[in-house]
Amino acid sequence: MTATPQAPQSDLEIARAARLAPMPEIAAKLGIPEAALIPFGRDKAKVDPGALAPRGREGRLILVTAITPTAAGEGKTTTTVGLGDGLARIGKRTAICIREASLGPNFGMKGGAAGGGRAQVVPMEAMNLHFTGDFHAVTAAHNLLAAMVDNHIYWGNTPAIDPRRVTWRRVLDVNDRALREIVVGLGGVANGYAHEAGFDITAASEVMACLCLATDLADLEARLGRIVVGYGPDRAPVTCAEVGAAGAMTVLLKDALLPNLVQTLEGTPAFVHGGPFANIAHGCNTLIATRTALGLADYVVTEAGFGADLGAEKFFDIKCRIGGLKPAAAVIVATIRALKSAGGVAKAELSAPAPEALRRGCANLGRHIANTKGFGVPVVVAINAFSADRPEEIAQIQAFAAEQGVEAIVARHWAEGGAGAEDLARKVVALAEAGAAFAPLYPADLGLFEKIDTIARRIYHAGEVMADKSVRAQLHAWEAAGYRDLPVCMAKTPYSFSSDPGLAGAPQGHTLPIREVRLSAGAGFVVAICGEIMTMPGLPRHPAAKAIGLDAEGRIAGLF
Amino acid sequence: MTATPQAPQSDLEIARAARLAPMPEIAAKLGIPEAALIPFGRDKAKVDPGALAPRGREGRLILVTAITPTAAGEGKTTTTVGLGDGLARIGKRTAICIREASLGPNFGMKGGAAGGGRAQVVPMEAMNLHFTGDFHAVTAAHNLLAAMVDNHIYWGNTPAIDPRRVTWRRVLDVNDRALREIVVGLGGVANGYAHEAGFDITAASEVMACLCLATDLADLEARLGRIVVGYGPDRAPVTCAEVGAAGAMTVLLKDALLPNLVQTLEGTPAFVHGGPFANIAHGCNTLIATRTALGLADYVVTEAGFGADLGAEKFFDIKCRIGGLKPAAAVIVATIRALKSAGGVAKAELSAPAPEALRRGCANLGRHIANTKGFGVPVVVAINAFSADRPEEIAQIQAFAAEQGVEAIVARHWAEGGAGAEDLARKVVALAEAGAAFAPLYPADLGLFEKIDTIARRIYHAGEVMADKSVRAQLHAWEAAGYRDLPVCMAKTPYSFSSDPGLAGAPQGHTLPIREVRLSAGAGFVVAICGEIMTMPGLPRHPAAKAIGLDAEGRIAGLF
Repeated sequence: MTATPQAPQSDLEIARAARLAPMPEIAAKLGIPEAALIPFGRDKAKVDPGALAPRGREGRLILVTAITPTAAGEGKTTTTVGLGDGLARIGKRTAICIREASLGPNFGMKGGAAGGGRAQVVPMEAMNLHFTGDFHAVTAAHNLLAAMVDNHIYWGNTPAIDPRRVTWRRVLDVNDRALREIVVGLGGVANGYAHEAGFDITAASEVMACLCLATDLADLEARLGRIVVGYGPDRAPVTCAEVGAAGAMTVLLKDALLPNLVQTLEGTPAFVHGGPFANIAHGCNTLIATRTALGLADYVVTEAGFGADLGAEKFFDIKCRIGGLKPAAAVIVATIRALKSAGGVAKAELSAPAPEALRRGCANLGRHIANTKGFGVPVVVAINAFSADRPEEIAQIQAFAAEQGVEAIVARHWAEGGAGAEDLARKVVALAEAGAAFAPLYPADLGLFEKIDTIARRIYHAGEVMADKSVRAQLHAWEAAGYRDLPVCMAKTPYSFSSDPGLAGAPQGHTLPIREVRLSAGAGFVVAICGEIMTMPGLPRHPAAKAIGLDAEGRIAGLF
Repeated sequence: MTATPQAPQSDLEIARAARLAPMPEIAAKLGIPEAALIPFGRDKAKVDPGALAPRGREGRLILVTAITPTAAGEGKTTTTVGLGDGLARIGKRTAICIREASLGPNFGMKGGAAGGGRAQVVPMEAMNLHFTGDFHAVTAAHNLLAAMVDNHIYWGNTPAIDPRRVTWRRVLDVNDRALREIVVGLGGVANGYAHEAGFDITAASEVMACLCLATDLADLEARLGRIVVGYGPDRAPVTCAEVGAAGAMTVLLKDALLPNLVQTLEGTPAFVHGGPFANIAHGCNTLIATRTALGLADYVVTEAGFGADLGAEKFFDIKCRIGGLKPAAAVIVATIRALKSAGGVAKAELSAPAPEALRRGCANLGRHIANTKGFGVPVVVAINAFSADRPEEIAQIQAFAAEQGVEAIVARHWAEGGAGAEDLARKVVALAEAGAAFAPLYPADLGLFEKIDTIARRIYHAGEVMADKSVRAQLHAWEAAGYRDLPVCMAKTPYSFSSDPGLAGAPQGHTLPIREVRLSAGAGFVVAICGEIMTMPGLPRHPAAKAIGLDAEGRIAGLF
């Protein structure tokens, strides 16, 4: 095992140097006819699933998830892209499904690419700006509902909404801390009833979560209609449907619901669609994109936000449950550096040998392997290669994985593109062809608190769940109101199995405190919050925006 | 003169029944190569002016303006479209330039089409929803600046901005009265300094006005940089450039600055681009679209908001001045109904003969004719035909127009499409070929107050301008600060030459009160406000949104 040569260019340089294939050519790889392809510029398109001929069989769904994230990074999206390209190279008809990027945060810190090195989805710049306008459509639909709620109160329409009990906030795709807590309706009679309000970032919108879990337009409208926007003077919930906004919101979202098609650097079709927050929502791309891809490709590679404790659990228990998906295999991404970091090595020391720290870090990997296998899904570990990795370190991880009954395969897609992920691809195919026996962690009819308790004990290995009487009472009230069968969406720090981000490795016996629960009746889950949740970021002292502009050649500078 | 038969279908039915030509075919009519055409769906495209070969000659620019608007309607956009189709039919290479529709108001009242009857621009539905995302880009750029202003204050960056003196508001493309006056930055230290703020509708954004007046990307960035966002503790203005936002905003707007190309029902190329408010801004489509069209077509037909007192004056004194445009002719649209209405006839009585009222109404037309001729631009009156029009009424207007030295021509484009506007088209060609001697109303170096006074006396026929000492002092301060050469943008009721919307016809000797002046240093004008200005609409008790949705065939219902 020798060091991988560093790619000589930055992600941006590689992305810009790429010669993109025309979209009809990318679409043709999946048998998408031009009649189903709606162009957005020359290098992006939307696909109309209604214009596709049924293929009569479904592809195999591969989840890419990861160990607990560390500052060292693990490269989950990069591996998703690399694995997709690897599968394509070994002759499989493959599609990739990932989330869209949020616009606002790009102006705070330097923007996020979709993958990295030779394993990227392009066009990078468009994907980090307006892309095909889906986020803007969510913003418009969300804020139309907010305007209609205040207008409903203003005119005294029925059912009455108590202005003090409006729960529906507004959204913008911008990092703006000044909008977190505001008072609206000031300035006198003509402007309505003054009340507290606030803005979240668009990705945190329940409308986004509805878009991502909707099976079709009718289901989207039904989900939007079920959103609870506030409570009446009698404390009865008032829904979006009762305010009369669901139809108009659906009209605003009808194009946004069509999956976006782009390509990897190697021309593998990639659906980039939907972008919900991975804490207060499930953090996966849209169900409709995943289903469309499964109807077209033999292999569909997708990912879920954060580590497997959060991302994979929600993918299985929320998205797969709601969408009737049967994942065929899971890839758990790890890096030598991240495992050393999880074992306690400081960032500056990550290049030095540290077999003991690596051993400790492997405990985290082992927990994720066991958890994922617990869903009945076969697992392979992908070691996302860095040039500083040592053969003995690789061997140590591979031996550890073998003890857990899984294989750990080195993947060099960052430096080599799909060719570097062919071994991984072949293993994934072998696992998927051998068959899985997927089942969610808990049955839908388990009590809401019991669902939280099950996730806490079986996935997080907590000793107990701590929740105020008021939290339990709220859960019982929702059960009585007909929401018992909803899955639970955990909002917890991604940096530990526990709710303490400082507790690395594979802690057990800890206490999981549930601070608050929230009903996302439209999206279709109950959110259990185990700590602070920030739904509107701020900008740093020197925001990236200050350095962003067009250079002399009219190209975007400073965005990456 | 017999009654025109009513078109048998609604605007929406006609628009939906239209078979749209592929965009490359529309583009080819203007010699736009495919390399300059960026598709947005199958029926919309953006045109990259940088990818066009110079043609070596400029087309003739025709302005469509109107009498003072009344509840009876005058059909200015319909006539713009009809004239464009008429010019195309008589063999002229023609392009139409109109504004984009605002999304928000469509959910309040039933949405506005682009034209009507057989004189429409399509695709109607897309144009009234997200279209190509230009408004969303303006919203994003505007609100990024707002976030950067508050962030600048939060971190104590220099030059200091006094949180009590932030003048930059936020925008959303939604009718939401609760956002007119708000307080932001509540909730403690982490959320910044609490201060008053508010939202306007996106069309009212100064960013939109900058986009509409920019000559290219570099000029756009310069204009954005000059926007004044607030004042320091020393009351010195702080600009967008000083906050460091102009480059990032330009990146967000780079695609929005590319003109959008669609088509009329008859396949005439139509640039639909930009949509600034016609009161606090100049109310015309983008300069870049107009210039692009002039570089491609022999005739370019465009329009300006409201009646000629507001729209044409701003078109000539702001847009033509900034853009170096030389309009070749102007069409003043009138209808028998609107002239009777201006003469005092109630809406329910408009179908009955009323020669005396029509005579009184013609005074309004006469004033607009004289004003427009005063700019050195030849004029023709278009009588936009209704089926109830009587031959003797038409004759009366034609005789009146002849007394003013202009021709009044009946145009039947609403019922007949371009064929119904061929006579008008031929007259426009004759006027344009005869040549114009356009000059703005006032020189750039006239004092700011003197500019207001000139418009008030020469266009509105006011006896005097009334302004507080503070208003005059503010204007002098801006002159001293280097803004003396800016044109003035009047914000006045469109329903009268005076500031009293009840004063119909052609009043004179009235007093024009200037309530407030505002500096739009980025857009490049000083706004003089003569009354109340509403920059964020509200929704009615029963908003149109409640009836909007998708029907059983997946088509949009209730939007029109």
